[in-house]
Amino acid sequence: MTDRPGALMAREIAEQPAVLADLFAHRAEIADVARRIAAARPRFVLLAARGSSDHAALYAKYLVEIGLELPAGLVSPSTTTLYGARPDLTDVLWIAVSQSGGSPDLVEATQAARQRGALTVAVTNTPDSALNEVAELSVDVRAGAELAVAATKTYTATLLGLYLLIDAIGGGSGAAAADIGTLAQSTLELCGPGADEVAGRFRYVERMVTTGRGYSLATALEAALKLAETSYLAARAYSGADLLHGPVAALDSETGVLAVTSKGRGADAMRAALTAIHERGADVLAIGSAAADEPATTRLIIPETQERVAPILEILPIQRLALALSLARGGDPDQPRGLSKVTRTR
Amino acid sequence: MTDRPGALMAREIAEQPAVLADLFAHRAEIADVARRIAAARPRFVLLAARGSSDHAALYAKYLVEIGLELPAGLVSPSTTTLYGARPDLTDVLWIAVSQSGGSPDLVEATQAARQRGALTVAVTNTPDSALNEVAELSVDVRAGAELAVAATKTYTATLLGLYLLIDAIGGGSGAAAADIGTLAQSTLELCGPGADEVAGRFRYVERMVTTGRGYSLATALEAALKLAETSYLAARAYSGADLLHGPVAALDSETGVLAVTSKGRGADAMRAALTAIHERGADVLAIGSAAADEPATTRLIIPETQERVAPILEILPIQRLALALSLARGGDPDQPRGLSKVTRTR
Repeated sequence: MTDRPGALMAREIAEQPAVLADLFAHRAEIADVARRIAAARPRFVLLAARGSSDHAALYAKYLVEIGLELPAGLVSPSTTTLYGARPDLTDVLWIAVSQSGGSPDLVEATQAARQRGALTVAVTNTPDSALNEVAELSVDVRAGAELAVAATKTYTATLLGLYLLIDAIGGGSGAAAADIGTLAQSTLELCGPGADEVAGRFRYVERMVTTGRGYSLATALEAALKLAETSYLAARAYSGADLLHGPVAALDSETGVLAVTSKGRGADAMRAALTAIHERGADVLAIGSAAADEPATTRLIIPETQERVAPILEILPIQRLALALSLARGGDPDQPRGLSKVTRTR
Repeated sequence: MTDRPGALMAREIAEQPAVLADLFAHRAEIADVARRIAAARPRFVLLAARGSSDHAALYAKYLVEIGLELPAGLVSPSTTTLYGARPDLTDVLWIAVSQSGGSPDLVEATQAARQRGALTVAVTNTPDSALNEVAELSVDVRAGAELAVAATKTYTATLLGLYLLIDAIGGGSGAAAADIGTLAQSTLELCGPGADEVAGRFRYVERMVTTGRGYSLATALEAALKLAETSYLAARAYSGADLLHGPVAALDSETGVLAVTSKGRGADAMRAALTAIHERGADVLAIGSAAADEPATTRLIIPETQERVAPILEILPIQRLALALSLARGGDPDQPRGLSKVTRTR
């Protein structure tokens, strides 16, 4: 039996409010892991991931640097798996992020990190994965089986899992996410129809630039990947800072721009970039709780939250947009060309 | 007096063999800085940069992780400058990379890093810059004034400066770069005419994907930025590993692919991705010392070196390609739309 195109992706997008509420309700399990990490007093945090999880890891990096005031870096697994690097990782917290927990290079790099002295944590949606086996600690993001090829609920559940973990390491109770399930539901209701409409507008676009700053940069990166992998359009993300530095030159009236802007420091810093983009005549879709305040052609306004949890909501209308755009262009996001669910690279 | 379009960029591309040879000849000054760093016995390395320098920083991250076996991360200056993060940076080596040394957010983040205990080094092309003033140590990449808007000689000089610095921290003498000036000259002579020819082939392309793995990932990122900023085409870089994971779906016979592949572990790992890309019918331009061995439509074969210095040569024909493509499309890379030389973002 074959479902209609995009049925899997649509269902998993719609599941997110329940998934997020359930994960928040299980935050005590994550807090237990956090206590063991806090007791080890790490001095440096390394985050290892690929694909969508890499964007979740970038989000976590901001949480670590700002919330825990620890230096943090994104790791290239290939320095270990291709070149055999064996750095001294004493005092390092190593967070490996992967919904499947099955990427061989991530498993190998995490195993090596543990041998070299790091405290290793696997953040996955598959508690019995190879990654969970090699890591000392595990966070289960409890999103349930994800059948669509494009990651949606595992992405937002991973963001929430990372927020709850890092907040708890710093002694917090995850308060900024207390209503996350309800807020996700409102976001889908408020922005879903608008996202479908915008898909019509962008139906013939071949190039999109996505942009954001601060916490929202992760959303811009995930948006570009989601649009590229479901609708085959050339989508590229830039930090609002880098965009002003050069690539704004490539924007014109034929470029679609997706700007992520949620109330707080990130949005304040985005304003200069958005003004420059607007002046170039680009077709700007602003998404976020600060979208109402920005120069833009179209806006999808998301309920306001503390800035550090905004990425969990920002991506929801973008997932809807990616789905609707894929369908409008005659595709099936559940059966994209050449996409496989688990990275098998080493 | 106005020069012909692209004259500045052409001149600065051609200057690189001399710039690189001169910087190598002055390696003793860099080794002095390296000795002071080695004496401080850093345990972690953070790299801060924006734009092209961010790609040089990624290259340096591989050198640090593989060559020094220290954990390393790329920093987001905005966690400090937007959100006021003040991490404990005891035992941290902070390397700030910027040709102009003038980006206010990099200066502010570097100053904050020094106050928080990091040993700070500025790698710039402007020894009297604000960044050099706030950093404890400095490396001058000696590329001379860069007048073209697109960074060329400052990029390769920064790569070489970082290689010489990091190799010397580990006790090396920079031997892998001993003939770098001569090799750069041969590369331009061998690949320059070919790059000009390829520009004709790609004249009407609107989408390009660039890809590489390991050390060459930095080249793929820099190639995408260079093509986007001089020729306004939608160019996006993917790690060869990530490309297989999803975005390969977006490649078809209308996509130009620039694959960077230099002999060594990176090229070995790229082969699976290149085979998948080739099977999708994409028009593949392979660049590097391993290009002869890969499935590709066109090849620009670069003299072989140790893999860790290959990125210094790989980018040379790509700069020529960006220049020729911009001219073929009726542009002037010396006067691109909306591009400014110094990032003024905070």
